[in-house]
Amino acid sequence: MNNFTYYNPTKIEFGKEKEKNIGEYLKQADVKKVLLVYGGGSVKKNGLYEKIIDSLNKNNIEFEELSGVVSNPLLSKINEGINLAKENKISAVLAVGGGSVVDSAKSIAVGAKYDGDVWDFFINKSQIMEALPVFTVMTLSATASEMNGNAVIMNDETKQKYSIASVLLNPVVSVINPELMATVSKEYLAYSAVDVIAHSIEVYFTAKVHPHFNSRIVESIIKTIMETTEVLLENPNDYNARAEFAWAATQGLNGLTPAGTEGGNFPNHMIEHSLSALYNVAHGAGLAVVIPAWMKWYKEQNISQFKRFAREIFNSDDENVGIEKLEQWFNKIGAPITLSDANIPKEGIGSLAENAYETSKVWGMDKIYSKEIIVEILEKA
Amino acid sequence: MNNFTYYNPTKIEFGKEKEKNIGEYLKQADVKKVLLVYGGGSVKKNGLYEKIIDSLNKNNIEFEELSGVVSNPLLSKINEGINLAKENKISAVLAVGGGSVVDSAKSIAVGAKYDGDVWDFFINKSQIMEALPVFTVMTLSATASEMNGNAVIMNDETKQKYSIASVLLNPVVSVINPELMATVSKEYLAYSAVDVIAHSIEVYFTAKVHPHFNSRIVESIIKTIMETTEVLLENPNDYNARAEFAWAATQGLNGLTPAGTEGGNFPNHMIEHSLSALYNVAHGAGLAVVIPAWMKWYKEQNISQFKRFAREIFNSDDENVGIEKLEQWFNKIGAPITLSDANIPKEGIGSLAENAYETSKVWGMDKIYSKEIIVEILEKA
Repeated sequence: MNNFTYYNPTKIEFGKEKEKNIGEYLKQADVKKVLLVYGGGSVKKNGLYEKIIDSLNKNNIEFEELSGVVSNPLLSKINEGINLAKENKISAVLAVGGGSVVDSAKSIAVGAKYDGDVWDFFINKSQIMEALPVFTVMTLSATASEMNGNAVIMNDETKQKYSIASVLLNPVVSVINPELMATVSKEYLAYSAVDVIAHSIEVYFTAKVHPHFNSRIVESIIKTIMETTEVLLENPNDYNARAEFAWAATQGLNGLTPAGTEGGNFPNHMIEHSLSALYNVAHGAGLAVVIPAWMKWYKEQNISQFKRFAREIFNSDDENVGIEKLEQWFNKIGAPITLSDANIPKEGIGSLAENAYETSKVWGMDKIYSKEIIVEILEKA
Repeated sequence: MNNFTYYNPTKIEFGKEKEKNIGEYLKQADVKKVLLVYGGGSVKKNGLYEKIIDSLNKNNIEFEELSGVVSNPLLSKINEGINLAKENKISAVLAVGGGSVVDSAKSIAVGAKYDGDVWDFFINKSQIMEALPVFTVMTLSATASEMNGNAVIMNDETKQKYSIASVLLNPVVSVINPELMATVSKEYLAYSAVDVIAHSIEVYFTAKVHPHFNSRIVESIIKTIMETTEVLLENPNDYNARAEFAWAATQGLNGLTPAGTEGGNFPNHMIEHSLSALYNVAHGAGLAVVIPAWMKWYKEQNISQFKRFAREIFNSDDENVGIEKLEQWFNKIGAPITLSDANIPKEGIGSLAENAYETSKVWGMDKIYSKEIIVEILEKA
C-alpha cells in the first residue's frame, strides 16, 4: 500500500428537503453575496430555483446569477461568470445543477481570485493558491464533483477538454437530495451510471498496487450502481434506489477509492474527453463507447484484476466474460457501445486520437498512450 | 435511506515515516505549544518519542508532556492533563499512542476550554461548544478515534465508562504509519480485530433501515480485517496487511458506515463497557465475549440481515452458522469468547447488568435493554 494523504473537508447534507436550508449553510459560513450558477431553465420550471431564492432571502444572502451552463461546460461561459464575480464582490459561488454546473462554479471560483486567464490553471501554467468557497445543490449524480476538488471544462476556442484539481475547490457544503434527481431522463440516468462505473474502474484496473480493501469498495460501488440503475429504469420514483445511487456515485470519486493505490490513471476519461470535445457526445455516453474497447485492449496488462472483476461483478471465472457482460449491460440500459451507436464516423478516429493525444501529454500519460495506441483502442469501438 | 449529514474534516497522513512530519503539520495549523500525551514507556523504548520531539524542535513547537495513560483511560489522568493545559497556555493536544491515548487527548482538549468539571460532558450535563485542536500519531489501529469525534473514558471514582462526541474533537491531522504498529502483541492485534468488527456490525444489525451500499461497505471492512489479521498473526511484519488493516479500521467508525441508516445503536459496546469498567478487561476482549451472546439473543429481530451476514462473510445460508463461525474465528485468533475465558465469574453477571443498565439509560437504550435483558444476554456468554 502506498503512502497517501486523505483529506476531504466537504460537508454533505444528504436527503429530502435539504435544499431549503442552503441559505442557512451559506450564512453559517459567513457568506454575504453569492453567484448563483445554473444550467437551462429546468430549475425554474420545477420550482427548485424559487426554493433556493427563498432560502437566500430568508438568510439575507445577496446574489447575482449566471445561467445557461451546458454539459461539457464552456470556458466562455465561465469567463462571463468570473467577470460577474469580480464586478460584484461575490464571496462564494453556489452551483445548482449537475456536474457541469459544479465544474463551472469551481472554475469561476478560481478565476475570480486570479488576475490572469483562468485557462492557465488547466494547462498547468499556474498553480491554484486561492479560490472563492463553493457550495452546491445537486440535481444529478455522477461526477462526484459535489465531494471533490476537480473540475473539467471545455475550451470552446481550442476544443480542448481539460481539468483542474485542488482541495480548495472541494465544496464547503453540498446538498444531495435524491428527490431532485427523480426527473432525470432514462438516457441521462444510464450515462450517469456509466460515468460512476468509469470512475470506479479506471484506477482499479490501471494501478500497479491496488489493495484488496480498495477493490472491495470499488466493487461495492459498482454493484450498487448496477442494482439501483435497474430499479430506477423501471421506477424512477424509487427514493431509496435513487438515494443509494447518489451516495455511491459520490463515493466513486471523492478520494476514497484510490487512497493507497499506486500508479493508477484515467485512460478512458482521457480518450472520452475527445469524443465530447469533437462530437459533443454526453460524457457518460462517450465512456460507454470507450470502456469496452479499452478493456479489450488493456486486459492482458492486469489479468488478475480483470479476473477478479469478472468474478466479483458477474460471477464468472473468465475475464472476457466480465468485459462482455459489462458491454451488454451498458447496451441494456440504453448507452451506446460503439462509435457508430454514438453517431461518430469511423473516419473521425484520426482526429479523435490526435485530440486525445494532446490530453495524454498534459496528463503525463503519453508514454503509454501514443496516437497509434489510441487509434488501436478506438478501432475496437 | 434516511437523511444525514456527513462531515469528516480530519486529514489523514498515511504511510511510512509520516510521523517525522508531525511538527510541520502542527506548524501549518499555527500551533505554538502542544501537550504531548502518551501511555507507558513503549514510545520511548522504540524511538518514536525521539522522532516526535525532533520534529517538534525543528519546527519550533514548544511542548509539555502527560504520560502514563492506561487502556480504559482514567478521568483522574485526564484532569491532570487539563490542569497542565490550562497552566501552560497549550494551544493543541498531540496524542501519540492508541485509542485510549487519543480519547484522553480529546477529553483534555474539551476540558481545557471549560471552567467546570469535564465529566459534565460525559453525563450530558453540558454541551461541547469548543475544544483545543487535536492531532494524533497512531501506534495501534482499532477504535478509528483518529478519524472521528468520539472519546470513551472511565470515571475511576464512579466506575462509569462513558463517552462524548463532537466534530470539534475530530483530529485536525492524524498520522497512521502501519510500521509503528508492527510491534503490537498478537493478543492486542486480535482484540483490535474484534473491536473493528464490533464497530462494523453494531449498526449493520440494529438499524431499522440499512441500505445495501452500507452493508457492502461493512462487509468489505470485515472481510479485510479477517483476511489481514490472519496474515499478521503469521507474519507481523507484512506491511501491506498491516496497512490494509489500519485503513479498514479507520473506515469502520469514521461516519461512513452508518450514513443514511436509521435507528442503529451500539448494544455490544454498551454491555462491554461494564466488563472493562468492573473487571478491567481489554475492550476488544470484552467485545469478543459479548458479541456472540448478543447475536444469539438478537438474531430473530433482524433475521434477513443475519442471513445476509452468514452468506456474505461465511458463504452459508444459515444465520446460525454465521454466528457460530464468527465465534469460532474469535476463538481461533485468540480472543476470549466466554465470561470464564475472560476470568469473569458467573456471579458477576448481576453487577455487570446493573452497571450496563446505567449506560443503557444514558445512551437512551433502556427501553430495549433492561437489567433483565442484559442478564439474559450475559448468561449466554
